Amino acid sequence: MSVTALRDPLLAGALEQIAREIDSMFDALLPVQGTLAEAMRHAAIGGGKRLRPLLLTATAAMHGVDRAQALRAAVAIEAVHAYSLVHDDLPCMDDDALRHGKPSTHKAFGEAMAVLAGDALQAFAFEVLSDPATSGDPFVRAELVQVLAAAAGAHGMVGGQVMDIEGEGQALDLPAITRMQMLKTGALLSAAVEMGAVLGKQPAEGRVHLKGYARDIGLAFQIADDLLDHAGDEGKAGKALRKDAEAGKQTFVALLGEDRARDQARMLTDQAIALLGSYGQEADLLRAVARYIVERDH
Amino acid sequence: MSVTALRDPLLAGALEQIAREIDSMFDALLPVQGTLAEAMRHAAIGGGKRLRPLLLTATAAMHGVDRAQALRAAVAIEAVHAYSLVHDDLPCMDDDALRHGKPSTHKAFGEAMAVLAGDALQAFAFEVLSDPATSGDPFVRAELVQVLAAAAGAHGMVGGQVMDIEGEGQALDLPAITRMQMLKTGALLSAAVEMGAVLGKQPAEGRVHLKGYARDIGLAFQIADDLLDHAGDEGKAGKALRKDAEAGKQTFVALLGEDRARDQARMLTDQAIALLGSYGQEADLLRAVARYIVERDH
Repeated sequence: MSVTALRDPLLAGALEQIAREIDSMFDALLPVQGTLAEAMRHAAIGGGKRLRPLLLTATAAMHGVDRAQALRAAVAIEAVHAYSLVHDDLPCMDDDALRHGKPSTHKAFGEAMAVLAGDALQAFAFEVLSDPATSGDPFVRAELVQVLAAAAGAHGMVGGQVMDIEGEGQALDLPAITRMQMLKTGALLSAAVEMGAVLGKQPAEGRVHLKGYARDIGLAFQIADDLLDHAGDEGKAGKALRKDAEAGKQTFVALLGEDRARDQARMLTDQAIALLGSYGQEADLLRAVARYIVERDH
Repeated sequence: MSVTALRDPLLAGALEQIAREIDSMFDALLPVQGTLAEAMRHAAIGGGKRLRPLLLTATAAMHGVDRAQALRAAVAIEAVHAYSLVHDDLPCMDDDALRHGKPSTHKAFGEAMAVLAGDALQAFAFEVLSDPATSGDPFVRAELVQVLAAAAGAHGMVGGQVMDIEGEGQALDLPAITRMQMLKTGALLSAAVEMGAVLGKQPAEGRVHLKGYARDIGLAFQIADDLLDHAGDEGKAGKALRKDAEAGKQTFVALLGEDRARDQARMLTDQAIALLGSYGQEADLLRAVARYIVERDH
């Protein structure tokens, strides 16, 4: 379904708005001159659903955070996501020529520049977060860095990517693939929600349900991704599909079958929404995101 | 000259000590289990002169900083340096098989794992810096991140690497190669000194001379590197030499000739030492580092 055809007008508006805002924030903050700047902009601007920024800004808004500050943190986490896609697409990794309907960064700029543009995007993320413009409170800045760095590293996203590579051609069972996906995709989605709560100065106890929500939608998102990879439309996806099966990677769909995978994603979504029970209508956008994740068609 | 044959006993002791301390700090803080952890440890432990950690801890010691905290910051900057070498050695970059006398990370673990180990080392650096154990003062933690992220990114180290790649086979003049090296090597050396001053809660004004010192020794270091690459011993260097000339890269030695390059390095060292004029014997280690940089033979 296209963004405008979304049944939920609140979510449709929010998705359009965040896509616009993230592009313009990247445009304002990324380096301007030279090939490296071009490669970073190619990788970061004009692509993706901006799901992490949406989760971060929606959670921040629930806690009354200034939107400009939330958008800076959102750009930082999206820079980490974007760099991971650049490196993931490299010939020595997934070897993908297409990303968000454009040539992947190494196809457009060469492999060396893609490695370096990814590296610079990661540094950019932490430079943005630690800048006083992101929060006047140094404790908040340091904690934003702490949450994102932990989620991005060996015990988070990169750790999940390694489990994914090492699992190729192996018969991973459901607990193993769940663990892998909770790191590979879940860690950053969870960090998005947590960073919104950090900006809103929520104490760690107050973040427990929000993190549970993020964990559940992260897994639901991955199951939905597997379903789309299995049956989706390459034109809408803007990338090659059914590569997982070719690469001998285990997926939720292969393990559970299509019907049970779909049930599992719905169950996780319901559970995520239940975890928002203590919030009123200020959490409606997070509820809509949870439903969107299993209903989207790209 | 080997470390033990150094004429300056203060420096010889400091180099031995920091090498031991950094290895043991990496050992304590890096992930332990699995291939990713092994690759990160391969890249980070047991190699290199630990010049950045030495500069950082020496500057921190001048300002009365607790050594355990300074070592955490030192491990963070060394993790960024180590990751840059891992990515620099990749086949699509300099394609080096040897680093610190061992197989480079992609030779030992494969290209995909080397890309990911480098990525995880960068995240690790910011995770360590933003941890309250590095400083109880959140302002210091946020500022450490700010300084390192800026030095590591598109306007620092990675920017210099891009200029280096783009300059291959081109007739760079002295200002261009100076600009490139000030980013590629100088930014991180300068950050090391600045991070020591940040830990010591020195205001920005108080860091001007220290940063000038770092800039000068950074350039002297690079000229000395070019001289060693031109005439050095591969066994001592633990890596392939004379690759710059083969790759059509411009060097200070090619531009200035050996004698003038040597004079230039000495002049920069004298200037760096002069910038420490307002300090007493607490800056003797930084003075010794400046001299060491042009006198070392590997």
